[in-house]
Amino acid sequence: MSITQTLAEFIFTPSEQLAAPDLRTRATRYIVDTMAVTLAGAAEPALQTLGQAIHPSNDAHCVTVPWSAQRYREEDACLLLGMAAHILDYDDVSMLAVCHPSAPVLAALLALAPNTPTTGADFIDAYIIGTEVMIRCGQAMGFRHYDLGFHATATLGSLGASAACARLLKLSHTQTCHALSIAASSSSGVRKNFGSMVKSLHAGQAASSGLRSARLAQAGIQGASEALEDGGWLKAFSGGITDYWPASLALGQPFAISDPGFEQKRYPCCYLMHKIIQATLVLQRQHGLSLEGFERAQIDMCKGGSIALIHPQPRNGLNAKFSAPYAVVGALADGRVDLASFQDDAVLRPAIQSAMGGVCVIEDDVAPDHGSDLGSAAVTVNLFYRDARSYAHTITASPGSPADPLTSTDLQNKWRDCLARGLPSLPTDITDTLFNTGLQLDTLPNTSTWLAEFHDGN
Amino acid sequence: MSITQTLAEFIFTPSEQLAAPDLRTRATRYIVDTMAVTLAGAAEPALQTLGQAIHPSNDAHCVTVPWSAQRYREEDACLLLGMAAHILDYDDVSMLAVCHPSAPVLAALLALAPNTPTTGADFIDAYIIGTEVMIRCGQAMGFRHYDLGFHATATLGSLGASAACARLLKLSHTQTCHALSIAASSSSGVRKNFGSMVKSLHAGQAASSGLRSARLAQAGIQGASEALEDGGWLKAFSGGITDYWPASLALGQPFAISDPGFEQKRYPCCYLMHKIIQATLVLQRQHGLSLEGFERAQIDMCKGGSIALIHPQPRNGLNAKFSAPYAVVGALADGRVDLASFQDDAVLRPAIQSAMGGVCVIEDDVAPDHGSDLGSAAVTVNLFYRDARSYAHTITASPGSPADPLTSTDLQNKWRDCLARGLPSLPTDITDTLFNTGLQLDTLPNTSTWLAEFHDGN
Repeated sequence: MSITQTLAEFIFTPSEQLAAPDLRTRATRYIVDTMAVTLAGAAEPALQTLGQAIHPSNDAHCVTVPWSAQRYREEDACLLLGMAAHILDYDDVSMLAVCHPSAPVLAALLALAPNTPTTGADFIDAYIIGTEVMIRCGQAMGFRHYDLGFHATATLGSLGASAACARLLKLSHTQTCHALSIAASSSSGVRKNFGSMVKSLHAGQAASSGLRSARLAQAGIQGASEALEDGGWLKAFSGGITDYWPASLALGQPFAISDPGFEQKRYPCCYLMHKIIQATLVLQRQHGLSLEGFERAQIDMCKGGSIALIHPQPRNGLNAKFSAPYAVVGALADGRVDLASFQDDAVLRPAIQSAMGGVCVIEDDVAPDHGSDLGSAAVTVNLFYRDARSYAHTITASPGSPADPLTSTDLQNKWRDCLARGLPSLPTDITDTLFNTGLQLDTLPNTSTWLAEFHDGN
Repeated sequence: MSITQTLAEFIFTPSEQLAAPDLRTRATRYIVDTMAVTLAGAAEPALQTLGQAIHPSNDAHCVTVPWSAQRYREEDACLLLGMAAHILDYDDVSMLAVCHPSAPVLAALLALAPNTPTTGADFIDAYIIGTEVMIRCGQAMGFRHYDLGFHATATLGSLGASAACARLLKLSHTQTCHALSIAASSSSGVRKNFGSMVKSLHAGQAASSGLRSARLAQAGIQGASEALEDGGWLKAFSGGITDYWPASLALGQPFAISDPGFEQKRYPCCYLMHKIIQATLVLQRQHGLSLEGFERAQIDMCKGGSIALIHPQPRNGLNAKFSAPYAVVGALADGRVDLASFQDDAVLRPAIQSAMGGVCVIEDDVAPDHGSDLGSAAVTVNLFYRDARSYAHTITASPGSPADPLTSTDLQNKWRDCLARGLPSLPTDITDTLFNTGLQLDTLPNTSTWLAEFHDGN
């Protein structure tokens, strides 16, 4: 049986086999988390720019997105939802395939849901399946894929979104094979576009092409029977290193969502800043520290640990998302790091700007073997005050990773922070109701009930 | 200057520099040829299937395609036009980059033209620029790209269509750079989908993503400043073999459209059948041959010359497009090979079916160095009749290639044949008028004049 057919069978795994409590509970939390960052992302100016390129439509088959009364075609809604989910770089990560799994898959499902009445449980099932297909396809190719310059969130996202949509649309086995073949011919996205609006657009494009592949297959468009292996997608997108599905790589045994789980971001900035922030906040809370009397700081990291932290003296919020000094100084000044920390005016405070010059990064000589090893390398923050006090703390587990997961309180605080950004007119009690309804998604008779509440409340 | 910027400058090459008579004459003929095969392709059942997946719309910004009164969004029109252009495998080829250059570029321009009033001359300019960008980007990556399993028509088509649309939309230099960066992150399509509907869908997807990249850049979406080189698109899609634009590779000096020119198909089937058909028709005409008295045939080819000719005993028209025996027997029976030759009933004629068993292919031991060398390898057809007569003829230049180009009569006959298929209710005199108007495209004050005539006449 070809891997395309194996994937198609897997996509229709009976719901009973997806009923392990931990699996569904985690999926629900990831969906709620991604919905939060999507709503926060929707407030970014780039989303308005994208909206200007996309024509709303009043055709019957069009759908709304949770932050707007405008109606869009499903594929266009995917673009908006996917870009919004990823633009703050605040959405979850799976280092198994160096990708953001939830953004493209959830965007496609949210675009499809209004036209595809579905229970919350079915919606969660489709999300679990889509993210699993995405991550395992990435593992099948290996790190060479990312290393060549492909943005795995974009390329794998097309297949993951396709799988999720095929399940939600209840396609036949044959149609599902064709959807995957079309999706394999819709993979795109290069990492060279990192640092531009196109990085987050990738998540939208992946959602859009994945949904389109399912809709085309549903209408009768037929692809090759084995588009992935034997000279197909795996070979092309691994630069010829891989051509077959590794026998050791199983689908759903266990699900990546459950073991090891995804890494959810506690802070809305580059993941390489997270341990610095966490260590600083631990010291700040333990010792009641602030910027008062602060002299300097030293951050000890593994070789390459600061590779993306390219702004020693950030001049705006976007710079600050890639700044080691701001990670220390912002956390010390405010005792928290959230969306407000990355507003331009927060970054430009004179006390912040002057203190950042005193922060240096020291990388040791030991380079990690893989990019993913950065996730397990220790980071130490050393703080020095003018009265000769000094403090040091080391963080090994990435904040938000399975070793240090977001607590329910963390998740709710992130939700409130994100919704206050994306839907500022929403009263707090409705924000909390939406959060609680989201966590009950598994029991909702219709997903649209939850989605409609964003509009009703707004 | 980065190659993205170099390409953006090239895209706005002054029209005077595109005024060499041969360049514009050839471009016009390629446009007319591609319009013909697009209209013939539109009659294929797969196009109706695609149409069922796409919702027509009556919004003001929607456009028609030449064979239908329905209105579609520009991106959807691209899908329909691109798939129609490529589905018969009757559209032109450039072996410089092993791609079909006209299908994705023209599809994008045809979708854009109704909303972008433009002279015929400007339309031709955009087509020349788009195909040049497409082919040179493919050359920059080298054959490794195709060899890895990418369908170059799809992947390069996204960039070519983006370039053509950027010019037609008169984007700024900066917007054009962003359009190319977005297009570089929209490249997709694997060869494993050859032999399925997805092969031709690739041309539509490339047109659609190229047009979208230009529209998004126009609205203000910004990509990276150097998406192609230095760890970008060239590296990813060449499997790491290439990372920089070769210094020897110039844009438009000369234009590929002019030197060596494109290869236009004389017969609506696999290009590897063309020399077989040509040799058989030469013998048929020279000696007044038919199937009467025919005993057997032997076809001598280079090693690999029949690699795609996988149907020794075709049972329908699609099979017959990849059949060496049908190339000989069909040509002998009818004295011509055209669209009617690949109708199922033509293939299933008892005399044809029984004669095909007597045709064998002999490949010699000399393998060509590159896939493109198949284009220059000789093919000999040997015919043996029951009365001991025998005939042999060798063809070296591919029919329709620059060494044996389509004559004006060939082109007009192909046009008539294609339009009779795609627009069967069109009177012959209007068919001929449309042909002549197409050849005068360079002088038309508005491209839409020509495009509207298809509707008026139909």
